[in-house]
Amino acid sequence: MSKPVIAITTGEPAGIGPEISLRGAHCCRDIVFPVLIGDYAWLKQLAGKMDSGIKLQKLDSARLHEAIEKKETASIGVIDSPLQAPVIAGQLDPRNGQSVLAFMDIAIAGAMNRQFDAVVTAPVQKSTLNDAGIAFTGHTEYFAEKTETKRVVMMLAGSVRKLAGDGHVMLRVALATTHLPLKNVHKAISIDCLLETVSIINRDLKNRFGIVSPRILVTGLNPHAGENGYLGDEEIRIITPAIRQMQETGIRVSGPFPADTLFQPRYLEHADCVLAMYHDQGLPVLKYATFGHGVNITLGLPLIRTSVDHGTALDIASRGLGMANHGSMVEAIHIAAEMAAVSSQNRRQNGK
Amino acid sequence: MSKPVIAITTGEPAGIGPEISLRGAHCCRDIVFPVLIGDYAWLKQLAGKMDSGIKLQKLDSARLHEAIEKKETASIGVIDSPLQAPVIAGQLDPRNGQSVLAFMDIAIAGAMNRQFDAVVTAPVQKSTLNDAGIAFTGHTEYFAEKTETKRVVMMLAGSVRKLAGDGHVMLRVALATTHLPLKNVHKAISIDCLLETVSIINRDLKNRFGIVSPRILVTGLNPHAGENGYLGDEEIRIITPAIRQMQETGIRVSGPFPADTLFQPRYLEHADCVLAMYHDQGLPVLKYATFGHGVNITLGLPLIRTSVDHGTALDIASRGLGMANHGSMVEAIHIAAEMAAVSSQNRRQNGK
Repeated sequence: MSKPVIAITTGEPAGIGPEISLRGAHCCRDIVFPVLIGDYAWLKQLAGKMDSGIKLQKLDSARLHEAIEKKETASIGVIDSPLQAPVIAGQLDPRNGQSVLAFMDIAIAGAMNRQFDAVVTAPVQKSTLNDAGIAFTGHTEYFAEKTETKRVVMMLAGSVRKLAGDGHVMLRVALATTHLPLKNVHKAISIDCLLETVSIINRDLKNRFGIVSPRILVTGLNPHAGENGYLGDEEIRIITPAIRQMQETGIRVSGPFPADTLFQPRYLEHADCVLAMYHDQGLPVLKYATFGHGVNITLGLPLIRTSVDHGTALDIASRGLGMANHGSMVEAIHIAAEMAAVSSQNRRQNGK
Repeated sequence: MSKPVIAITTGEPAGIGPEISLRGAHCCRDIVFPVLIGDYAWLKQLAGKMDSGIKLQKLDSARLHEAIEKKETASIGVIDSPLQAPVIAGQLDPRNGQSVLAFMDIAIAGAMNRQFDAVVTAPVQKSTLNDAGIAFTGHTEYFAEKTETKRVVMMLAGSVRKLAGDGHVMLRVALATTHLPLKNVHKAISIDCLLETVSIINRDLKNRFGIVSPRILVTGLNPHAGENGYLGDEEIRIITPAIRQMQETGIRVSGPFPADTLFQPRYLEHADCVLAMYHDQGLPVLKYATFGHGVNITLGLPLIRTSVDHGTALDIASRGLGMANHGSMVEAIHIAAEMAAVSSQNRRQNGK
């Protein structure tokens, strides 16, 4: 495949999203054909203030097609989706909520009709969208709804320094539940939930990451994975039976393992992905280990979507350009490109 | 203070406890006066098979006093507390349960009467003690009960590689709740629990670690620290009011912070301790970061107690000597020695 076409939604305009999108696209233009989706005037204004000589061109559908065909790389293409209110860095304005949503809609539509090979999203401010009267619970959920996907899986990944020896390895952590109050987590862990989640992880690690037979390690829900029922019985009632069922279908899944001792080389060396039961069991260690370079990947969608693993960082944006770290954005573009390459190869092999 | 006298309970005899206790004592004998507590015959047998030339001597109370006075370092002292059944490495035997408990009783009694400056514990097998008919829920709880301490706090600590730049920093993570089924955690988080926990952390970091004005960062209970109530209200109802109350008493405590983004240099640089709300929120990242060198410290006791951060590792013990990593034991002895030195200095300053 030639360079994959990656749509980058520039996210909340008052946050660091536009800046890291511009810098990420600029950094990665040798390996991908980036297409920014956002307010052209605002992006142009920001790019003009940067010293990296980023050039932009406005693209409509026809021009986009031509630019891709001609492999134009002198400037970065922008699909203009104008904002409703002027932007002040660091200051939220609900009047721009609908526009931020439109960035996503353009990206999703373009990915579904194969104009884009993948979508990378910069962060949005959930509360501003809610204040604008939009029922929005998160990027992941929005992409699922718009693509009519029943279940998606949130996975975070990043390259991490090996604990023993030199070099780096890829750490991937998927979540069985995501944004739930802690007291409701145990109610959401069911055999069906785990079967569907592991099935999606297994399928996407094969089809989008090129891992022939993915090895998935599952945490317990309770401390010490319940310690034989002394500290909770969900491992006995739910997690272990679910793992057995999945093993019988040939999936290389094992567990439940105590979460506090699982993130060690003797386990991780034998894993392509860890499935944690909930948000704060899996993400503190992932974000610590990947240190500003983690990537959020939505599995189970009919399109490829990756994202930075951080928020809008309004405080950083308000201090002016050059303060934000675009490391996570660069990694998100890289992983999206790799996933696009694997998917394209699979499609060719399957004759689609 | 001269070298602190550190009692080391050798733990479950069929696990790696005796081996790491011997190796740890041997490694650290230049900085501490170690006293092993265990079955003399079994320890002697193990030491004889090691190539490091560890010499042991049996100590009764009188000999112990003399050995300390004379600063005897040619051999390592052992207080003999005989086992009831022969030991086979890797195979548990409930008949030895009472003896394992006796190791702790000797250590606690000796520390309470100032014969020992600190106690370091090797791991025990909870289930074997339970099978022996002993109601034992953990070292931490046992030490609390035997010293009539109402509330103790479990803190794990270790030296970790700086994420940004070179060098190491000390990472300390304390827990507001410990070994509870996940579904019960939210019920255990109360304003009183947090006030008492932070008060103990603050006092012990001062008195035992020599930190003049400890800075404590508190996590939220829910993902994203509840996101202004959208993902749970314990932050609003309990954690924030508790932090305010503690701040009013002059304690440098802040939060609640989202657990997934708290373990980053921009926060940790400004912290002496993180208080996590529960086991699997705080320990996976601590154990990942300290990688085999973490130490478990019980705060709030009238004595100093540290421990390794791992279990009995029966599988490793069954493979013979030389397979176990004694890194955590060495760190546990080092930290106990430092705590003993600070406590001794405080006692001198207070004229006690």
